[in-house]
Amino acid sequence: MKIALDAMGSDNFPHPDVEGAVAAARAYGDEVILIGDEKIVGPVLEDQKPGNLPVRLIHAPEMLSMEEKGLALALKAKQKEPKTSMAIGVDLVKDGKADAFVTMGNTGAAAAIAFFRLGMLQGIERPALAPVFPTRKGFCVVLDIGINPDIRPQNLVEFALMGSMYAESVRGVSHPRVALLSNGEETGKGNFLVREATPLLQASSLNFIGNVEPKEVYAGAADVVVTDGFSGNIFLKSSEAVAKLITDTIKEKILSAPPWVQLGGLLVKPAMADVRKLMNPSEEGAAPLLGVDGLVFIGHGRSDAQAVQSAVRVASQAARAGMQELIRREVARHGSGSDPNSGKG
Amino acid sequence: MKIALDAMGSDNFPHPDVEGAVAAARAYGDEVILIGDEKIVGPVLEDQKPGNLPVRLIHAPEMLSMEEKGLALALKAKQKEPKTSMAIGVDLVKDGKADAFVTMGNTGAAAAIAFFRLGMLQGIERPALAPVFPTRKGFCVVLDIGINPDIRPQNLVEFALMGSMYAESVRGVSHPRVALLSNGEETGKGNFLVREATPLLQASSLNFIGNVEPKEVYAGAADVVVTDGFSGNIFLKSSEAVAKLITDTIKEKILSAPPWVQLGGLLVKPAMADVRKLMNPSEEGAAPLLGVDGLVFIGHGRSDAQAVQSAVRVASQAARAGMQELIRREVARHGSGSDPNSGKG
Repeated sequence: MKIALDAMGSDNFPHPDVEGAVAAARAYGDEVILIGDEKIVGPVLEDQKPGNLPVRLIHAPEMLSMEEKGLALALKAKQKEPKTSMAIGVDLVKDGKADAFVTMGNTGAAAAIAFFRLGMLQGIERPALAPVFPTRKGFCVVLDIGINPDIRPQNLVEFALMGSMYAESVRGVSHPRVALLSNGEETGKGNFLVREATPLLQASSLNFIGNVEPKEVYAGAADVVVTDGFSGNIFLKSSEAVAKLITDTIKEKILSAPPWVQLGGLLVKPAMADVRKLMNPSEEGAAPLLGVDGLVFIGHGRSDAQAVQSAVRVASQAARAGMQELIRREVARHGSGSDPNSGKG
Repeated sequence: MKIALDAMGSDNFPHPDVEGAVAAARAYGDEVILIGDEKIVGPVLEDQKPGNLPVRLIHAPEMLSMEEKGLALALKAKQKEPKTSMAIGVDLVKDGKADAFVTMGNTGAAAAIAFFRLGMLQGIERPALAPVFPTRKGFCVVLDIGINPDIRPQNLVEFALMGSMYAESVRGVSHPRVALLSNGEETGKGNFLVREATPLLQASSLNFIGNVEPKEVYAGAADVVVTDGFSGNIFLKSSEAVAKLITDTIKEKILSAPPWVQLGGLLVKPAMADVRKLMNPSEEGAAPLLGVDGLVFIGHGRSDAQAVQSAVRVASQAARAGMQELIRREVARHGSGSDPNSGKG
């Protein structure tokens, strides 16, 4: 597989991005096409001694910062002759020169560029970012976690369909259990959006199991959880914030405690490291931006080389599984994700 | 102050409820009126040897279970002659025979009963449950966390006003900083509701500081955070779920580790207990149901006697501070929480 990778993406670019690219090429044999400013990226790539590894660099004279937004972003996203590393990377996918594009950069910018340059899959109205969350039993795909703060009930059916295909084709979950994130398990709980989406999901051919609360998500009750981008973002960020609050507080309490507690702290360090790993979404590399007409994966800005390598792996798996084609076929089979009358199977 | 307390509220009723009532009467000298089935509650109260403490029991032949909902609940809520402990307790407040009602029972049932029997404060359209969250710097009042999954932008102004008066009069925060829970800090981020509420809050006399993400809530950036009951519930329950996932995982990792790690676990136990305390909302006792025309506090079903005692304390503080009257006056001063044209001050 050929994976295009934004060399200017992560907060500490280009080091994590370039090191992750070279490590991925070495580990999986995928061709990695780095895109970035050759003056900045070139020397770092040389340092990695890629030798005969299938890694090459395409020059991009511009980059998109974390602050980019609004009209300025839209204009850059739409520029005819792509100049930013993101636009050049996305165009490689559009032109069939790469199987997927991966970036650790500004999520909003990446989504806007993918949306403008690739367009949407037929029958899908809204794109959704679909990261993987850790659970007591394994993992769960949650979408959307931030692209669309305001959606219609039908969009949740599209999300459910795309999330299921991702869980099945890339993550190996057969007949994934799909649930709606809600403020109560019982049918009838939820806001307007959840209540209206329920009969649409019940009428679909998906393995819809009803509502789940956050604790059921973490207990592993569902494989795919759908929600609007506002609530999904609150879910993601509350989880991250509490995880950080707890681990920071434990550290502080131990450091300010008597020596024997500090000794205890040293002894439990390996256990704590496992917990941090569990709560660190960047372990999963990157999340697919589902719904756009081309494979795009977006990771955390604070990704390290390991996370970048994982992201390349996941993108390559999705490409190999033909995920886009599977989603396209499934949408066609459903009539359209937006058609509530498509009926069972 | 006279506090009416549902003796049939907590999951393990009546023990935590009755023990908490007696402990509160002993500690604060408030009169506590227990309401519950005298055959069940009477003997437990006797066991507590209340002696001359100002604790008495009013018989209630019925109770509301955690499963009560829909029409059956509405009918019970509206019954002319109150029979359930919740309805009798709320009526004591309505009739001026108690200054506040406290229950650890079914939140939805308590809210419905308070709404039907007390009605709303003039100028407030929706009630909101307003618990206190722990932060790095102290605490933050968050509302609504579950009563209203679907609201209008104006309702967020009402919530902000009521939350500010609660933080100020009961929690002692002067000029509380009010923020909107959102998926990004910048103005313009948020869903439709957040974006529409922003100018209304800016035009109010409240100390509005803009949007906050969950991590800023926990960092202590705001004193009052307003949100719809759906997102607020996701915020609350994600936080609880992650806290539980992490503490459970730490425990498991330590128990399954080599002996020296287990020893370390024993040594850090006091630090971990502090963390659990921080993450346990029931430490705060109960949350006010703001907006109904009478003081009602609702606590966790899993409350212990300590939590019940704290709940009585907080309810008594609110009564002593004249919180309802302060909110009433503030709403009148604003014209109405629902009037976007009320202007500054």
